[in-house]
Amino acid sequence: MITRWVSYRHAGQEAFGTLDDTDRVHEHRGQMFGANAATGRSMLLEEVQLLMPMQPTKVIALWNNFGQLRAKLNLAVPEEPLYLLKSPNSWSAHREPIPVPRAGGKVVFEGELGIVIGQRCAAATESDAMACVFGYTCANDVTVSDILNRDPSFPQWVRAKGLDGFCPLGPVVATGVDPTTLTVRTLLDGVVRQDYPISDMTFPVARLVSRISVDMTLMPGDVILCGTSVGVGSMKPGSLVEVEIAGIGRLSNRFG
Amino acid sequence: MITRWVSYRHAGQEAFGTLDDTDRVHEHRGQMFGANAATGRSMLLEEVQLLMPMQPTKVIALWNNFGQLRAKLNLAVPEEPLYLLKSPNSWSAHREPIPVPRAGGKVVFEGELGIVIGQRCAAATESDAMACVFGYTCANDVTVSDILNRDPSFPQWVRAKGLDGFCPLGPVVATGVDPTTLTVRTLLDGVVRQDYPISDMTFPVARLVSRISVDMTLMPGDVILCGTSVGVGSMKPGSLVEVEIAGIGRLSNRFG
Repeated sequence: MITRWVSYRHAGQEAFGTLDDTDRVHEHRGQMFGANAATGRSMLLEEVQLLMPMQPTKVIALWNNFGQLRAKLNLAVPEEPLYLLKSPNSWSAHREPIPVPRAGGKVVFEGELGIVIGQRCAAATESDAMACVFGYTCANDVTVSDILNRDPSFPQWVRAKGLDGFCPLGPVVATGVDPTTLTVRTLLDGVVRQDYPISDMTFPVARLVSRISVDMTLMPGDVILCGTSVGVGSMKPGSLVEVEIAGIGRLSNRFG
Repeated sequence: MITRWVSYRHAGQEAFGTLDDTDRVHEHRGQMFGANAATGRSMLLEEVQLLMPMQPTKVIALWNNFGQLRAKLNLAVPEEPLYLLKSPNSWSAHREPIPVPRAGGKVVFEGELGIVIGQRCAAATESDAMACVFGYTCANDVTVSDILNRDPSFPQWVRAKGLDGFCPLGPVVATGVDPTTLTVRTLLDGVVRQDYPISDMTFPVARLVSRISVDMTLMPGDVILCGTSVGVGSMKPGSLVEVEIAGIGRLSNRFG
């Protein structure tokens, strides 16, 4: 069974709960990743302000993790997950604006699946890694493409992807989802620009979490962005960008 | 006047205070970066367990920021600060062991000066940036050198420098220090291996903080590692590595 978790502010209070198919939010008490129970209180989705549904210690972002994009860019199959970190100042919620960079540059969207860690995970086997995954979310790995290679000696992954507001996450974390069945769609001003299957991932979820956990201990709330595929494009100030994964939800943010 | 701040645990309680020249710790109440006052209570340094002296949201690490190392490696002068992020699982305290990587590899020390941010800092001029700097600390930017370039398409800066325990910080944050007068020394098992002047920095403190703050909003507790210079070397399990900056203090950690 799929459960869709949200964090929200309602009447000045922060809370969390589940979102049902009729767009009602059912308040819970306890911990989203741990023991919790419905309070019996519910409200309409439109009555709440959705917040980031997790509090990461880190957000890891994969590069070159989809076959279709790799073929297009003529890259080699990586022998290990290749990743960077998205800075905490980049993390943002559904409907928060993505600021135009102060220094300018071409800004692109990258719709992605996010893996949300629910339990501490260190040097985990693939099956232990899956037990540490709480659920899945939508993410936009926003990037200033001009920055990436403008210094020939040092590809600036962290900087190009780490500007303020450059990592919208959420608004839903879905549990009980089989990630291999999912499709990521990114819409720019209502037009579908990305539409790719998660089954094309080079390092699928269990292997990805297991391999990364050998390097870095993962903590509850940490997010792994699985990387993007074909269809990445640039945004203009005023553009609305939406990352939609059926079974999870839709993450909407305006640029500028 | 130089003041040396420490965070510590004493009799089961976490606290902070100043460290005097006779190795006495003077407890303070309030906030290290804000209003505070001495409580009048003091204890010997040896009676306390020193903790990380700040709680960063992020730790930024510079690359190619010293002329002497740049000349040795035959690199170009960068037009902008080049940096990566050290992962939260890498942050650690004075005397915490640096774990041997689970996957092996050659592990090197990099003694560095850390700039500790005391106030939110966004798109700051150089003089505004200096007002956001609280003080300076010692840091070890530990790195698995084998990882860096083992994938020819993607230099793995974040991974090579982000393993658990790979970023010892502290134990002191010194205020009232002129960073241009400082010298960083790194000792391996008591032998001096690095001994370089901060005055050789390409992007000095004000310019560094200002430039980075255009990209990323800096928060209280955030640390900028200024990059290292010549003398980087590898550690063997059991090695004691110490980063010493006269006027600040000495950060000691054992590898393995």
